[in-house]
Amino acid sequence: MASMEETIKSMLCGTTSGGSSSLISASSEWKAVAACAAKLKATHLRDAARDALENADRNANLLTEAEGIVLDYAREKVDGDAMAALFALARKANVEAKRDAMFNGDVINETEQRSVYHVALRAPKGSSPMLANGEDQVAKVNGVLDRIEDFSDRVRSGAWKGATGEALTTVLAIGIGGSYLGPEFLCEALRAEPAAAAAAAGRDLKFVANVDPVDFARQVAGLDASKTLVVIVSKSFTTAETIMNAKTVKNWLLANVKGDADAVVRQHVAAVSTQLDLTAQFGIAPENVFEFGDYVGGRFSVHSPVGMLPLALQYGMAPMRSFLAGARNMDEHFASAPLESNLPVILGLLGLYNSSFLGYECKAILPYAQALLRFAAHVQQLDMESNGKSVAMDGSKLDFAAGEVIFGEPGTNGQHSFYQLMHQGRVVPAEFIGFAKSQAPYIAAK
Amino acid sequence: MASMEETIKSMLCGTTSGGSSSLISASSEWKAVAACAAKLKATHLRDAARDALENADRNANLLTEAEGIVLDYAREKVDGDAMAALFALARKANVEAKRDAMFNGDVINETEQRSVYHVALRAPKGSSPMLANGEDQVAKVNGVLDRIEDFSDRVRSGAWKGATGEALTTVLAIGIGGSYLGPEFLCEALRAEPAAAAAAAGRDLKFVANVDPVDFARQVAGLDASKTLVVIVSKSFTTAETIMNAKTVKNWLLANVKGDADAVVRQHVAAVSTQLDLTAQFGIAPENVFEFGDYVGGRFSVHSPVGMLPLALQYGMAPMRSFLAGARNMDEHFASAPLESNLPVILGLLGLYNSSFLGYECKAILPYAQALLRFAAHVQQLDMESNGKSVAMDGSKLDFAAGEVIFGEPGTNGQHSFYQLMHQGRVVPAEFIGFAKSQAPYIAAK
Repeated sequence: MASMEETIKSMLCGTTSGGSSSLISASSEWKAVAACAAKLKATHLRDAARDALENADRNANLLTEAEGIVLDYAREKVDGDAMAALFALARKANVEAKRDAMFNGDVINETEQRSVYHVALRAPKGSSPMLANGEDQVAKVNGVLDRIEDFSDRVRSGAWKGATGEALTTVLAIGIGGSYLGPEFLCEALRAEPAAAAAAAGRDLKFVANVDPVDFARQVAGLDASKTLVVIVSKSFTTAETIMNAKTVKNWLLANVKGDADAVVRQHVAAVSTQLDLTAQFGIAPENVFEFGDYVGGRFSVHSPVGMLPLALQYGMAPMRSFLAGARNMDEHFASAPLESNLPVILGLLGLYNSSFLGYECKAILPYAQALLRFAAHVQQLDMESNGKSVAMDGSKLDFAAGEVIFGEPGTNGQHSFYQLMHQGRVVPAEFIGFAKSQAPYIAAK
Repeated sequence: MASMEETIKSMLCGTTSGGSSSLISASSEWKAVAACAAKLKATHLRDAARDALENADRNANLLTEAEGIVLDYAREKVDGDAMAALFALARKANVEAKRDAMFNGDVINETEQRSVYHVALRAPKGSSPMLANGEDQVAKVNGVLDRIEDFSDRVRSGAWKGATGEALTTVLAIGIGGSYLGPEFLCEALRAEPAAAAAAAGRDLKFVANVDPVDFARQVAGLDASKTLVVIVSKSFTTAETIMNAKTVKNWLLANVKGDADAVVRQHVAAVSTQLDLTAQFGIAPENVFEFGDYVGGRFSVHSPVGMLPLALQYGMAPMRSFLAGARNMDEHFASAPLESNLPVILGLLGLYNSSFLGYECKAILPYAQALLRFAAHVQQLDMESNGKSVAMDGSKLDFAAGEVIFGEPGTNGQHSFYQLMHQGRVVPAEFIGFAKSQAPYIAAK
């Protein structure tokens, strides 16, 4: 859902679609939101909370639910009028038409002349065709997923072996930015999930992102190269850090695995990339390269082979298919729900309202779940890379501040760290994420 | 140095010491800084950089060095006048006298009627006495350090054994907030340092902080309880999360280590606490409880047994003594250098200037070193718990916003994540930390 929220905020910060290049901030709808914000800015959270407690309508109106997720925004500095003004602003910005264009595979990334079509990654086999670049992506995406399942099953069963005949029980995934933060967040999220943990027994997945050689040294300490499969993740296969680390890992493999150099690379290295010529040049067998469309931005790529290959190697394909199905459910909600009950739309509007209207520079993401310990770092990229812009789609300079600084740690840890400043020092909009059911029970006395 | 910077900012946000309760913000010195800030706010970083490149004086004046650390602040929105105004403000706030009172062990924590004396933790044997609560802390602190050395040596050598006669090769440290973030940052920082890594061979140190049982489940997955030493870190031994996890770990030990329950707890559990009655009640042998003074705040406790015990168990005492010596060097610099060349003072003033005068809510901490991957989380607590205040020392309400939101990830990872917003979206003051020498070399081809 986080990726959709960013999409919404991006859509809102563009120009209006009326053909003129006037900024959305010149519209009467923007001014109506600004008037609500000016009125509500001084509201203390205490009063919003008291109001919510005493006012059943406020609680009912500022709460919505979809796909098992309850969104309670009764503690935001909004009221019915402010939300109505925000939905009117979304309509003025043609959010619905822009969303539909995105789901239609239209070329809405105008600077790169591409579709923005990561939603195609979540379309299951047999669903309606999703066309981009004149081709159905549903078939393509699912074809690659089947290849990932086949390859990861063979590695996990030991049918695919290293150059010295050993089963490959450790995966070292090399990538940076979206090729690291999404997969790492998901890897951590599944670590203590009972079925995933059972599937990962005896296996290990490690990430190398930083070009600092200390990162590489930390991750390979104690690893047996002859039991290690390396996955190099770079769409362009030219990302400076990743290619530097790819060269380093090749040297490490050749120094530590006996056998013919070509065989070592062929047996121990796979890739996620669209550049088959460059991966071949590196020595990777073409059948062990997993592609995705140019319409997937790095920060949205956890659902692509970028996330699916290393994570399927660690946890098997079953949790991956569940993850994709969950995202698909949210896609369908986003595509079809009215704005007024549309979770990503509401979250996107509140983010815009807090940052560009109320002037709060930050947002804290506070999951009360240790499994989400790297979720804030993932959303930090997703949001700050998407929405930290100073110009509109047509290049005209924004006359308002766009984008929020995202940070966070899991609760209750954060309570013992930075909450004091949130209580006393400054207003920091905060997103609390709770779970009805834990991945793990307490260990009680026998 | 980070802890001193926070100290400085706290000192600056207090009231003036002239006997009146007027806020520092009412002083002419504050207004002089505000005038400089108003003039410089519109300066673009580009122009500050160009100015620094073309102007040897600016580079020379806005750069200082101490203890092997070079501080270059020529890219801050300050000039000679602004810095002079800031130093005058520091003098108006009696920063030097307040610093001296801190180093003298005076009761400057007025709300709790305590000294603020974590600097005593860094005083080596034989240095001048440092009195708090009427007792010399140098002797006390070093006595406890010697006990930590003795105990950690015995555990590391296998002389101290678990209940079933096994050597204890894994340490599980249980604590939250300052009892977790400081030790974890330091543990990660040493992981790839060659001497520390060699000393840690065959050993493992893990942390459990969160009350979410998933944290515990993640950390004990695959651990052999009969080879595990638990260190419970809680000054009061009543911190809710830590005591919950302490009960959980006791149940886990009793369920997984054969032998008499009392013997299992005695052999497998040590503590860092000041509450010997409560640790004894838990079943921990008094000689395995390591104390520190009530004058050490949790966020400053990494130099106390809170950090030293678990880290000495992992890395041996030698790197710990180096760490303390480095902090002591910086203490001496802080205590004696003129404000104009005092690194913690300058950093504290710049933090205050950026947040309370220029109105930037955030600060990014960007270490170009993977070893510091948890440094920002540590400073986040240190700073945001210290400086997120709405009242002055005498309880009067501040009429300015105090404290910054601290966030960060190591470079170059951050460049592929949130730098875009810093480039385009908003002004985010940033502290870049570089190193002249890496802990690890590149692995070149043979």
